Amino acid sequence: MTTLAIDIGGTKIAGAVCDANDSIIQRWRVPTPMDADAINQNIAEIYREAIASGHDDIEAIGISAAGNVGSDRRTLTFSANIPAWINYDLSEHVGALIDHAVPVIVENDANCAGWGEYVHGAGQGSRNMVALTVGTGLGGAIVVDGHLYRGSFGMAAELGHLPMVPDGDTCGCGLRGCAERYTSGSALEHFAKAAVRRRPQDAKRLLELCGGDVNKLEGPMVSQAAQEGDVLGLYAFGKIGEWLGRTMAAVSAVLDPDLFVIGGGVVAVGDILLDPARYNYARFLEGSAYRGHAKIVAATAGQDAGLIGAANLALH
Amino acid sequence: MTTLAIDIGGTKIAGAVCDANDSIIQRWRVPTPMDADAINQNIAEIYREAIASGHDDIEAIGISAAGNVGSDRRTLTFSANIPAWINYDLSEHVGALIDHAVPVIVENDANCAGWGEYVHGAGQGSRNMVALTVGTGLGGAIVVDGHLYRGSFGMAAELGHLPMVPDGDTCGCGLRGCAERYTSGSALEHFAKAAVRRRPQDAKRLLELCGGDVNKLEGPMVSQAAQEGDVLGLYAFGKIGEWLGRTMAAVSAVLDPDLFVIGGGVVAVGDILLDPARYNYARFLEGSAYRGHAKIVAATAGQDAGLIGAANLALH
Amino acid sequence: MTTLAIDIGGTKIAGAVCDANDSIIQRWRVPTPMDADAINQNIAEIYREAIASGHDDIEAIGISAAGNVGSDRRTLTFSANIPAWINYDLSEHVGALIDHAVPVIVENDANCAGWGEYVHGAGQGSRNMVALTVGTGLGGAIVVDGHLYRGSFGMAAELGHLPMVPDGDTCGCGLRGCAERYTSGSALEHFAKAAVRRRPQDAKRLLELCGGDVNKLEGPMVSQAAQEGDVLGLYAFGKIGEWLGRTMAAVSAVLDPDLFVIGGGVVAVGDILLDPARYNYARFLEGSAYRGHAKIVAATAGQDAGLIGAANLALH
Amino acid sequence: MTTLAIDIGGTKIAGAVCDANDSIIQRWRVPTPMDADAINQNIAEIYREAIASGHDDIEAIGISAAGNVGSDRRTLTFSANIPAWINYDLSEHVGALIDHAVPVIVENDANCAGWGEYVHGAGQGSRNMVALTVGTGLGGAIVVDGHLYRGSFGMAAELGHLPMVPDGDTCGCGLRGCAERYTSGSALEHFAKAAVRRRPQDAKRLLELCGGDVNKLEGPMVSQAAQEGDVLGLYAFGKIGEWLGRTMAAVSAVLDPDLFVIGGGVVAVGDILLDPARYNYARFLEGSAYRGHAKIVAATAGQDAGLIGAANLALH
Repeated sequence: MTTLAIDIGGTKIAGAVCDANDSIIQRWRVPTPMDADAINQNIAEIYREAIASGHDDIEAIGISAAGNVGSDRRTLTFSANIPAWINYDLSEHVGALIDHAVPVIVENDANCAGWGEYVHGAGQGSRNMVALTVGTGLGGAIVVDGHLYRGSFGMAAELGHLPMVPDGDTCGCGLRGCAERYTSGSALEHFAKAAVRRRPQDAKRLLELCGGDVNKLEGPMVSQAAQEGDVLGLYAFGKIGEWLGRTMAAVSAVLDPDLFVIGGGVVAVGDILLDPARYNYARFLEGSAYRGHAKIVAATAGQDAGLIGAANLALH
Repeated sequence: MTTLAIDIGGTKIAGAVCDANDSIIQRWRVPTPMDADAINQNIAEIYREAIASGHDDIEAIGISAAGNVGSDRRTLTFSANIPAWINYDLSEHVGALIDHAVPVIVENDANCAGWGEYVHGAGQGSRNMVALTVGTGLGGAIVVDGHLYRGSFGMAAELGHLPMVPDGDTCGCGLRGCAERYTSGSALEHFAKAAVRRRPQDAKRLLELCGGDVNKLEGPMVSQAAQEGDVLGLYAFGKIGEWLGRTMAAVSAVLDPDLFVIGGGVVAVGDILLDPARYNYARFLEGSAYRGHAKIVAATAGQDAGLIGAANLALH
Repeated sequence: MTTLAIDIGGTKIAGAVCDANDSIIQRWRVPTPMDADAINQNIAEIYREAIASGHDDIEAIGISAAGNVGSDRRTLTFSANIPAWINYDLSEHVGALIDHAVPVIVENDANCAGWGEYVHGAGQGSRNMVALTVGTGLGGAIVVDGHLYRGSFGMAAELGHLPMVPDGDTCGCGLRGCAERYTSGSALEHFAKAAVRRRPQDAKRLLELCGGDVNKLEGPMVSQAAQEGDVLGLYAFGKIGEWLGRTMAAVSAVLDPDLFVIGGGVVAVGDILLDPARYNYARFLEGSAYRGHAKIVAATAGQDAGLIGAANLALH
Repeated sequence: MTTLAIDIGGTKIAGAVCDANDSIIQRWRVPTPMDADAINQNIAEIYREAIASGHDDIEAIGISAAGNVGSDRRTLTFSANIPAWINYDLSEHVGALIDHAVPVIVENDANCAGWGEYVHGAGQGSRNMVALTVGTGLGGAIVVDGHLYRGSFGMAAELGHLPMVPDGDTCGCGLRGCAERYTSGSALEHFAKAAVRRRPQDAKRLLELCGGDVNKLEGPMVSQAAQEGDVLGLYAFGKIGEWLGRTMAAVSAVLDPDLFVIGGGVVAVGDILLDPARYNYARFLEGSAYRGHAKIVAATAGQDAGLIGAANLALH
C-alpha cells in the first residue's frame, strides 16, 4: 500500500510515492506552471509515471496546495498565487484526468507541513500543537488532541493573518498589521533593509553581501550575516523573533497549546531566531508567572514535511 | 440523579440543584466572602442543605469560578479576585468539608457560561463555537467538535486577554492592549466617559443619568441612553462593538468557528451592540470575500447559563 | 531686478526668471538627470540662457530641492533621490560653474512650496501657518510669525515622517508608521489597492480604470473614480483624509497654528479629501471643545508654488 | 523694580517677589483652595502682604497656572483641575481685587517652567529649545529664536497630548494614546505596577516599599528602588525613558530644536531616565545618521523654575 503525495509550491511541484509509514520511495520534481490546467496535467502525469514505475498499489493522492482549502478537503476557495483557484474543485479536476482511479485529497500547505511535524517530526507526543512555518509568509497548523484542526470553513490556523498591529504594515491580503508582515522571510528582509538605511555605519557586511545595493538584499544574506555575528543581521532576526514570540503569545490566549514547532527556511539559524521568540513569548504571555508555558522548538522533519504530511493525511 | 452547581461570582455565590436535563430544581444565593476558607464553608453548607432538602441523589458538584483553572479541573492557578487562589486545589478543599461524598469539578466561569449556551442555549447545533461573555471583563469559551476545549494548561479561550493593540490600554493583568480593555462593560464606561469629556455639547443625557458627575457614569446608564437613541450612548456601544468585531476576526484567524455567541449584561441592548460587531467582523476578517463567515448571535440561556454549564460539565 | 528660481523635481528641472513680485517672466524645463554633476550643469546652463535672454539683472538663484537642506541654506545633507547628495554643498557646486556671479540659495522643496502659498497663495494673512504638500510623499512647511521656520539643523517640518503608528507601515526612511505612509499619493494607492482586494464585488470601476490589473492602479485613477462617486475611490480618500486630519491634530499639539494649507496633486479632488480631514482633525484635536481650531484650506498658488517660493526666499 | 510671581499648583500656591534679575527676595506658600474665587483672594492677599512688606515697586504680577491659557495671556480656556476655569479671565478677576494696580499676566505652568530654564537654567544659549516637564502629567514649552512660542490660540507645546499610540492608553483628556500616558510620573507608576503583577518573583523590593499592596505603589518609591539598582524600578524608568525619547523624536520632526531640557520630579534620577531617553531619541529620529541631533539635558533651575519664568514673562 502506497500513497502519492504532491506538493504544489510557488516554483516547483514535488511528487513522492510514500509507503505505509510515510517514507518516500520515489520522487518527482517539475517546475510549477502558471496555469491551473497545466498543474492538473502535471499531477496526472506524475501519477501515471508512478503507476508505470510499478506503484500500482497507490491508494490515494494527497495534495499540499498554497491556498485556502474548504472543509471538503477538495476545493481551493482562494489562492494568492493561482488566480483560477477561486472556489476551484482541484480534487475533481485532477480526478477527471486519472479516471477517478483513486481519491484525491487536498490540504493547505501549512497544514501538511505542520501535520508532517506532528506525525514524524518535532511534534510527536504533544497533545495540542501549533506549527508555524516561517517562509515568504507565515503559515500555521493546529493539532488538537491528535487531530488536525481545520475549522468550520477550512480556514483555521491562518496565523500569518492574525491581526497584530492595528493600522500596521500593509499586507497582500488587503488588511493591515497581519502577523506575517512582522515575522516571515519578507519581514526579515524589511527589517534588515530598514536597518541598513538607518545605520549605514554598521551596514558594511550586509552591503557587501548584496553587492552594495540595499534593494537587492535577500533573506539568506541576512541569515549568513547573522550567523557571522553581524550586528544588523542579528537585529533583524531579533525583530522577527520578537514578533514570532508575540504571535505565539496571542495564539496561546486562544489555544493554550503545550508545543510550538517552528519550521521554514529561516529557522535554520536556530537560536538566533528562537531565543528572542522564547523571550518575547514569556514577556507577552498572559499570566506568565502562574501557568504552564508551551515549549518552542525547531521543526525536524525537514523540507519533506509537507509531502510526508500530505501522504499521511490522504489516508486518515 | 441530580447535580449541585455552584457559581462563585464577584458579589454572590449562587447554588442550584439540577436534574438530569440540567434544569434547576432548587436555588441558593449568599454573598461572596473575601476569604477562601469562608467560600469553601459556604459551598459545603449549600451541599448539606441540599441533602437535607431531600436531594440525596447528588452525584457531583460543579463549581464555576472566576479564575484560571488548571487542566485537572480542580486547581485555581490564579484569580484576580481571591488572592489565596494561587495553585489552590479548590476541589480538595471543598471535598474535605463534605467527606469527599461526591466528586467536585471546578471550571472557569466563562467556560461554564459558554458551555451552558452550547448545550441549552444559542450554541445548540453548532460544530465549532466560540462564546464571548461581555461582563466587567471579557470571557471566552471554545467548543470544538462538540467538546469544551480547555487547552493544555487549562488556559484556552482567555479571549479577554488577546492582544489587540501593542502599547495599548493598561490591563489589570499587567499587559497592555488586551481585548477586554476595548470590549467589555468597563470599556463601555471608558468610551462613554471619554465622549462626555470630548463632546460636552452632546452629553446632556448621559450627565443627567450620572447626576452631573462623569466619574459616576456606569454601564447601565450608557445602555439606557443608547436605547433611548442618545448619540454618545450609541457612540460608546459602536466602539465596543467595533472591537468585539475585531476580536472575533482575530479569533477566526485561529479557530474559524461557524458561530459566535455573545453573552453578558451589556448584550441586553441587542443589535445596538451586535450590528457594529457584525460589520467590523466582516471588515477585518481575512479573505472576507472568499470564505464562509461565522454567525454572530446573542446568548439565550440567560443568567443561569453558568450554573447550567457547571451542572452539565460536572457529569461529562 | 529679477531672480532665477530652479525646482529640481524627480522627473524634471523647472527654471523660471521671476520679477520683483515673484511673477514668472520666462520658463525652462528639462528632464532631471540621475547624476549630481549633470544637474549642476543643467542649472548653470539655464542661468546662462537667462542672461543671454536679456535677464542680466538676476540677483540670486533660489533652488528648490527634494532633500534635507542644512541650516546654511546651501548644503543637501541627505536626499532619497540623489545618492551623491550627502553633505553636498549644492550652492558651491552650482556657484563654481557660474563664477559665483550671484548667490545661490538652496531650500527644501516643501518649504519652497509652503512659502509660495504664504506669500502669494492661500496662506496670505495667517500668523502661524503649516503647509502640507500631499504628493508621492508628504512634505511640510512651517511659518511662524511671518518667517519660514527651518529649525536648528534645517530639518524642521519633516511632517511626512511624524511618527503616527508605532510598528506601523514600513517607510522608505527606515522607520515605521511615518505620516506619509498613511496620507500621500502612495498611501492613496495602497488604500485603494487594499480595497480592491478586500471588496472585489465593489471594485468594478477601479479595475476598469487600471485595465483589470490591480497592481497597475495609480493615484489619478483613484481620483477620477472618487470624483465619479465610486465607493472604493471615496473610501481611499476617506482614509488618507482621516490620517491627514490626525496628522494635523498632532501638529497642533506642538504648534497650534491658525491655518493649514493643503497642496499637492491629490488635493485637486477638493472636499473629497478635505471633508474627512477636517472631521478627523476636530475628532482628534486635544481640548477640541475648548479652543480655537485652525482653518484647513486647499492651496491656491498652483504648480508654480515651489518656484515662486524659491524666488522669494532667495532674496529674503 | 520687582515682580510678583505666583505659581498655582495642584496642592499649593507659591508666591515670590523677584528682583530685576528674577532672583527671589521673599516667598509665600498657602494651600490651593478648590474654589476659583478663593484662589483669586489668596493671590490678592499675597500681593497686599508683599506691598506691606515694603515691595511697593512691584510692576506686574505673573501667574503660572495649570491649564490652557489663551493667546491674550489672561484667560484660562480650560483646566482639568479647576472646573470654573472655562473661558475664565483670571487676569481680570485678580486685577479687580487689587484695583488694577499692576498688570496681571497669566501663563501656562509648563511654559513658565520651560521659560525659567531658558533664561536662568539649562536652556541658556540655545536657539530653539523644547522643555519637557515630567510631573504627574507631561508639560511642554517651546522657545523659538529666543521667544516663548505660544501658538495662535495659546495652545502650543501641549506635548503631553501629542498622540503617540492610536487606540492607546486612555487619557483624562478623552483621547487615547497621549504622550503623557507613557512618559510621566503617572506612567512610571503604571509601568511599575504592571511589572509587579507580571513578575512577582522580581518584585520583592517594590512590594516592601509599598507595604505589600501594589495599588499603593507611588512614583518616589519607584525612583528609590531604581536608584538602588532594583530591576523592576529600572525597567519602569526604561519604559518612560523610551517613550520620552520617542516623544522627542516626534517633536523633532516638527521643530528640529537643538536642545531638550527635561524637568520635573522624576528627572532627579538623572541618567536612569535620560540614558534610555537619549538612546530612543536617536533610534526613532528621522534621518538619524545624516543630521544634527538635539542635546538632551536635565533641568537645572530647580523647583523655582516656574516662579522665575513667570516673573520674567510678566515683564517681557
